[in-house]
Amino acid sequence: MAVRAAVAGASGYAGGELLRLLLAHPEVEIGALTGNSNAGQRLGALQPHLLPLADRVLQETTADVLAGHDVVFLALPHGQSAAVAEQLGPEVLVVDMGADFRLANAGDWERFYGSPHAGTWPYGLPELPGGRAALEGSKRIAVPGCYPTAVSLALFPAYAAGLAEAEAVIVAASGTSGAGKAPKPNLLGSEVMGSMSPYGVGGVHRHTPEMIQNLSAAAGERVSVSFTPTLAPMPRGILATCSAKATAGVTRESLRAAYDKAYADEPFVHLLPEGQWPATASVYGSNAVQVQVAYDEAAGRVIVISAIDNLTKGTAGGAVQSMNIALRLPEELGLSTIGVAP
Amino acid sequence: MAVRAAVAGASGYAGGELLRLLLAHPEVEIGALTGNSNAGQRLGALQPHLLPLADRVLQETTADVLAGHDVVFLALPHGQSAAVAEQLGPEVLVVDMGADFRLANAGDWERFYGSPHAGTWPYGLPELPGGRAALEGSKRIAVPGCYPTAVSLALFPAYAAGLAEAEAVIVAASGTSGAGKAPKPNLLGSEVMGSMSPYGVGGVHRHTPEMIQNLSAAAGERVSVSFTPTLAPMPRGILATCSAKATAGVTRESLRAAYDKAYADEPFVHLLPEGQWPATASVYGSNAVQVQVAYDEAAGRVIVISAIDNLTKGTAGGAVQSMNIALRLPEELGLSTIGVAP
Amino acid sequence: MAVRAAVAGASGYAGGELLRLLLAHPEVEIGALTGNSNAGQRLGALQPHLLPLADRVLQETTADVLAGHDVVFLALPHGQSAAVAEQLGPEVLVVDMGADFRLANAGDWERFYGSPHAGTWPYGLPELPGGRAALEGSKRIAVPGCYPTAVSLALFPAYAAGLAEAEAVIVAASGTSGAGKAPKPNLLGSEVMGSMSPYGVGGVHRHTPEMIQNLSAAAGERVSVSFTPTLAPMPRGILATCSAKATAGVTRESLRAAYDKAYADEPFVHLLPEGQWPATASVYGSNAVQVQVAYDEAAGRVIVISAIDNLTKGTAGGAVQSMNIALRLPEELGLSTIGVAP
Amino acid sequence: MAVRAAVAGASGYAGGELLRLLLAHPEVEIGALTGNSNAGQRLGALQPHLLPLADRVLQETTADVLAGHDVVFLALPHGQSAAVAEQLGPEVLVVDMGADFRLANAGDWERFYGSPHAGTWPYGLPELPGGRAALEGSKRIAVPGCYPTAVSLALFPAYAAGLAEAEAVIVAASGTSGAGKAPKPNLLGSEVMGSMSPYGVGGVHRHTPEMIQNLSAAAGERVSVSFTPTLAPMPRGILATCSAKATAGVTRESLRAAYDKAYADEPFVHLLPEGQWPATASVYGSNAVQVQVAYDEAAGRVIVISAIDNLTKGTAGGAVQSMNIALRLPEELGLSTIGVAP
Repeated sequence: MAVRAAVAGASGYAGGELLRLLLAHPEVEIGALTGNSNAGQRLGALQPHLLPLADRVLQETTADVLAGHDVVFLALPHGQSAAVAEQLGPEVLVVDMGADFRLANAGDWERFYGSPHAGTWPYGLPELPGGRAALEGSKRIAVPGCYPTAVSLALFPAYAAGLAEAEAVIVAASGTSGAGKAPKPNLLGSEVMGSMSPYGVGGVHRHTPEMIQNLSAAAGERVSVSFTPTLAPMPRGILATCSAKATAGVTRESLRAAYDKAYADEPFVHLLPEGQWPATASVYGSNAVQVQVAYDEAAGRVIVISAIDNLTKGTAGGAVQSMNIALRLPEELGLSTIGVAP
Repeated sequence: MAVRAAVAGASGYAGGELLRLLLAHPEVEIGALTGNSNAGQRLGALQPHLLPLADRVLQETTADVLAGHDVVFLALPHGQSAAVAEQLGPEVLVVDMGADFRLANAGDWERFYGSPHAGTWPYGLPELPGGRAALEGSKRIAVPGCYPTAVSLALFPAYAAGLAEAEAVIVAASGTSGAGKAPKPNLLGSEVMGSMSPYGVGGVHRHTPEMIQNLSAAAGERVSVSFTPTLAPMPRGILATCSAKATAGVTRESLRAAYDKAYADEPFVHLLPEGQWPATASVYGSNAVQVQVAYDEAAGRVIVISAIDNLTKGTAGGAVQSMNIALRLPEELGLSTIGVAP
Repeated sequence: MAVRAAVAGASGYAGGELLRLLLAHPEVEIGALTGNSNAGQRLGALQPHLLPLADRVLQETTADVLAGHDVVFLALPHGQSAAVAEQLGPEVLVVDMGADFRLANAGDWERFYGSPHAGTWPYGLPELPGGRAALEGSKRIAVPGCYPTAVSLALFPAYAAGLAEAEAVIVAASGTSGAGKAPKPNLLGSEVMGSMSPYGVGGVHRHTPEMIQNLSAAAGERVSVSFTPTLAPMPRGILATCSAKATAGVTRESLRAAYDKAYADEPFVHLLPEGQWPATASVYGSNAVQVQVAYDEAAGRVIVISAIDNLTKGTAGGAVQSMNIALRLPEELGLSTIGVAP
Repeated sequence: MAVRAAVAGASGYAGGELLRLLLAHPEVEIGALTGNSNAGQRLGALQPHLLPLADRVLQETTADVLAGHDVVFLALPHGQSAAVAEQLGPEVLVVDMGADFRLANAGDWERFYGSPHAGTWPYGLPELPGGRAALEGSKRIAVPGCYPTAVSLALFPAYAAGLAEAEAVIVAASGTSGAGKAPKPNLLGSEVMGSMSPYGVGGVHRHTPEMIQNLSAAAGERVSVSFTPTLAPMPRGILATCSAKATAGVTRESLRAAYDKAYADEPFVHLLPEGQWPATASVYGSNAVQVQVAYDEAAGRVIVISAIDNLTKGTAGGAVQSMNIALRLPEELGLSTIGVAP
């Protein structure tokens, strides 16, 4: 069985990473590639690292072009997925790497994205409680945001085990690819090299309600989230530093036990040995997640740090992992836990 | 009047930055330069960016060599300053860029540094309440740590104005020069480029009690601090993301007013216009501090972000600023608020 | 005497670096600042590192705005300087940081720039033979290109001393600020970090005829130049690796002696001690040039390597140095040979 | 058939990259891993990106430990391979990633490495004329140096086709992993970020005779090489800018035709379409080589630029490719031409 996959939005960073992974996927055959402003161009000029696809030419993103595939991946700007998705039949697996179908609460969507809510699809973070069941056999998948992936995997076990109070404080550093490939002055190499800077401060980043949604589900109560993203001088990677007040009776041992239990059988999430800390370089280009926990007794806080590659586990790798589950293929197929380092 | 200055530890990063600044200081004449393992070497081989001093030769760090100067700067490893300082007469201004004399509480010192407490000197952060008065005419100065500089300047106005509850959560990213010049595998360029990673997680970093000391003094009550430092792929700079629960009645306006007031007349600390955020690149090589505040109403938290150059305002610039005050020179002499960017 | 200076094109990298230097120049008072697409904006939003000028507002680049200054610096895109310059009176010192007036040969200009030749102004590289004499008292200065600065200072002594054959091979690496601040996809941080790539290969880079002009003048015969520029993952700096076949009788000693002699009294160009090699980090933000020479006997080639900061000595620092000479101020005024490192 | 492979020197960068590739090789089973100073440590602490091997413990590098494998890879410091190799039986495939057996000329070895010549093994650069034939069935392989790989693939087709005169000028930029994992002050992140610097200038770099050997074989006459390596602020990658005077009658078309022909059927070497230039980011983590050519008519030179990943095609990927040929497996097995970008 070969799964025939189309990629809408093949010229951007998410699309490029997806193609990198699909090229290595033993059950996938790469079909149509589209990209609106770049339609008609060779992929070799746009994604020069994908040598096996260098001579493929991008097409327009239309229903006709996307027809006749088993899976259609949408790597489009936020707000453009719904219009494309509704033209695709119910028998096609549609994997949306944008935000359109992630949020269950329409009010949250409208407040943060400023447009009508398109709906809610099964959420592509299999490691969450009930995550796999929601994806098996599904024909629609909403791939999580990169920050929510890193943050939810860092904190949900603490919330599920009742070890953290319902106010999370999160500071995350992201590589610049998270900001996309559209050229803007503040994303120039001259500006970002040698610089750390925050953005979307004060509760306004669009990934905030998605984190609240996931952590609240794990906690069984509304969790508030203070989230500050920062831009780091590196192309890839997210390091999320997450903390919350410890509930009464938490010990270093109980904290570690909760994470050991949560991740003992997870193929992609690794609780590091004590004394070792996550580093984004260790998961460069891989679908692995590194997690480490600490209990700061003096401050009374649980601290959890996770590292992911924002383009792999944070976007395209998460998409492939969820596709595998939806298609009832082995979950790890075509994915790796081996980073490219140094 | 020429102030004759010696620098003990001239081969490291703090010593090098200090010399860069002293070369531009109109009232300072650079005297003896010492460096133990590098004694006998040309400075040009060790600090090739300091061309005017290229032919100076490092001497041993002894009382004889350091004698006969108006000011002696100590840029030595932690724990080595006290032995040198006690050999210097009370008429000499001794500026310690190490940690030895920063903490007032002997128990904190012993717990975090594991050695007997050497004493407490006037603290070189003039912007703190009472900071300048403590330094004027003083013959001993303890230069603050780089992280405590960034964090204290970010948060003390909120505590002084009663706007923040007494539990601070801080995540800071530092450039690699903060880790010094002694070669270690994890500090190799191959390891740090492209990587963000935390260290000293869970309340164990030695700068934690210094932050607690400063913030508690501003608050008039004990402030707990959860501090997580991270290493960023850049040579210089600290970006500190600091938050605390807002006290009752805080508004965006009251928060901004408190910072406006605290920093209206400060020559080096700049509260940015609304909508603009600090970036370490903007203060590269300068003694300036960029600060910005936000009130996250949904999470009920005050968020303050500061950017400094860890080697300048965070170490050598702070040392020169405090020296100026101690010597009753104009505070800004030899210092700049102009960064080297891009 | 205060020299009143206007800067046309204050929002770009060259303009920003110029302002950084002029702020530290004891004889200059900064007057009008212009920037076409950014007219009306605060400089603090465009050049956040220049805190003392944060509240200055950019004006349109018109003759009226630029009138009434002693010096007008033009930091405009290539081809725009001539139209502005001709509106400025002969009593005003006009310093063009663009290419328009660098080339003596109109045919070269037309071939490489594709537009009519505007003329030739005194060339702002004082270290070249006769360089200072051409600038003293001049009211027009053409600031050299960044690559020609690095390459000419590396090679002219060998040509002037008859040590190199008339075919030079040059490979240079430049930081990304050399490509300017206009956002382009290939200049995004995501693209340049971790990557070295060439551009303008095969004799087509516009700085090639300028190098040929300078080296041929030193050699007294036409020197051919094979020049390959590469883009390096750093914001600033040029490292130029230059070589040519050695003429008969060259020795390591004769080579070194020629450079010793050429640069013994130069304030900004430093021939490094044997065994030490230039590094762009050592001249970061400084007007210094580091030079080192080698004679490869087996290959029969003279190799000269230079490092500059492309924005300082390579553009704005060179402009200030030449302005000082033209105005008969001390040549080093407002300039430094101290880099910001690490 | 499973090929059982041991790796001597598994804690360094070459060893780590080799393990990354072997983990993805469908016919290889990873056996003993050794590392002298690190013997007894978990690989997870030394190579945290290799999660599937995290719990493997390094052993001492002894003949006993290495016995019983089909292939033994030696990733040892130069000069240590011979002593280990002679203890391994003639039936074992020994792949030396060090320099010991690369040079045919004992005098060259002694002059550049300062120790007795250990011998000459079949050379692991299959793309060279006769390269594959020398490797098929061989039980000993000398993996080329990283720079000679990039340079030989850039220039041999020009020499084989008689298009270039016998004096090559090469300037190459390498990522810092080429300098290894042993901590040295000049390799600290603080030193290398933001800096380009040369080393081994003037014909003294040890890879020079290896380039001369390869290019002379292609040319059928002695080719002299002027080689200048530079250190670039990136972890991986080599960009080699290579040129030589064109022989009489060379045209842009004849040059391109020679490279088209040389690389038309090569699985890993890609002559880029005209107008596109190599970039190290495009081959990050891949075994691909990007090549582009130009003819500079004015300077009369052929210019060829190549980009490789120094750890993959330049070391470990080249080793696996040659192993595949020696074992008569498909040459591309376990290797990829897909880079990890951005």
